[in-house]
Amino acid sequence: MKLYTTGMAPNPERVHMFVREKGIKNIETVEMALMKGEHKTKEYQAISPFRQLPALVLDDGRVITESKAICVYLESLYPEPNLFGETGEEAAFIEMWDRRIEFMMLMPLAMWIRHGHPAFVAIEKQIPDMAVRGEKGFRRFAQYIDAELANRDYIVGERFTVADITAFASMGFARVAKWKPDAETLPHLHAWRARMMARPCGQKS
Amino acid sequence: MKLYTTGMAPNPERVHMFVREKGIKNIETVEMALMKGEHKTKEYQAISPFRQLPALVLDDGRVITESKAICVYLESLYPEPNLFGETGEEAAFIEMWDRRIEFMMLMPLAMWIRHGHPAFVAIEKQIPDMAVRGEKGFRRFAQYIDAELANRDYIVGERFTVADITAFASMGFARVAKWKPDAETLPHLHAWRARMMARPCGQKS
Repeated sequence: MKLYTTGMAPNPERVHMFVREKGIKNIETVEMALMKGEHKTKEYQAISPFRQLPALVLDDGRVITESKAICVYLESLYPEPNLFGETGEEAAFIEMWDRRIEFMMLMPLAMWIRHGHPAFVAIEKQIPDMAVRGEKGFRRFAQYIDAELANRDYIVGERFTVADITAFASMGFARVAKWKPDAETLPHLHAWRARMMARPCGQKS
Repeated sequence: MKLYTTGMAPNPERVHMFVREKGIKNIETVEMALMKGEHKTKEYQAISPFRQLPALVLDDGRVITESKAICVYLESLYPEPNLFGETGEEAAFIEMWDRRIEFMMLMPLAMWIRHGHPAFVAIEKQIPDMAVRGEKGFRRFAQYIDAELANRDYIVGERFTVADITAFASMGFARVAKWKPDAETLPHLHAWRARMMARPCGQKS
C-alpha cells in the first residue's frame, strides 16, 4: 500500500491518527507539498480523480480516496483496536457522533479558516460571510461538546473511537485560527484534548 | 422503533428509500411539518438535540439521529439486501463513493437551493455567492458522474448500494431547482435515474 498525503490538513491527519492508533507500520508514504500545488498535476489526477489528499493506492493498483473510506479499509485489515464499533448498534452511535463532529465542528471550522484566513486567499475564492457563519457555528458546537464531555471521557461514550479522531483533527486545524479550548470556559473539552495529546494519535511522527 | 421524519427533504428521503429497499414494515412513523417548524419546538429538541429530522427512537428510549447513522443501524437489524458492503474492502469503496456523492453532489445542490431559492428565504439567511458556487459545483459533478455511469449500472459498480440512494435522493431534491438529468446532455445519468425510479427506492409510499 502507498499513501499519498500531506502534513498540514485535517483530513489527511484523520488517516495519520488512525494509523498511529492502530500501530500500522507497513504503509509507504508519499508526502505532497500542498501549498506548492503538487497535488494539482495531471500525474496526480491520474491517481486521485478529484486531486484530493489523502489517496491510498492498493497493491493491485486500485485507489481509495476520502479519509473516512481509507479508515474503513484499514479497519478491515487491522481490526484491533476497534474504532468503528464492535456491533451494528455501536457502529450506528459512532457514525452519528462522527457525523455530528464532521458536519457541526470540522466543516464550520473549515469555512471559518478557508474563507477568513489570509493564508488561504491563494487557494480559495473567499466569501467573507461564510467565514462569519463558520466561526459562529464552530464556537457554538465547541460549547455543546464541552457540556457533553462533562459526563463522559470520549466523544461517543466510555471508549476511544474514530469520532475522537475527527474531533482531535479539528482541534489541530483550529490552531490555524489561533483557537484552542480554554481551561476556564471550556474545561471538559480542554481536558479531553489533553487526554488525546497523551495517546498515540497525539504523537507526531 | 419510532421514526420522526418529514416528506420534503433529501436526508429524510435517504432513510425512507433505505427502508423501502430493505422492505422494512414495522417502523412507526411520525410526520413532522417542516415548513410549519414542528421540529423547532422544545418538545422535539428533547428527542433530537439539534432539532434534526430524521430521528429514530429505539424501544429502550435511546435516539439515533443523522440519516446515515440510522441506515447503519437498520442494516445491522435487516442485513439483506446488503447495502453497505459484504466485506471490509467493498465497504471502503462504497464509503468512498457515498462520500463523493454526498460532498460533491448533494451538498453543492443544497447550497444552491438553500441560498438561491425564494422558498428558503424564511429558513435560511441566504448568501447569494454560495448559491452560485453550489450550482456550479453540482453541475460539474453531474457531468463527471454521467461519464462514470457510461461504464457501469450503479454508482459504485455492478450492484445497488447506499451510494445510489444518496445520489437518487439528490435527484429528488434537484427538482426544487427545476433540474433533472437531460437525456441529450447527460444520457447515462438520465438512464440511471430511470432505473432508480423503477426500483423500491423510487416507489413513493
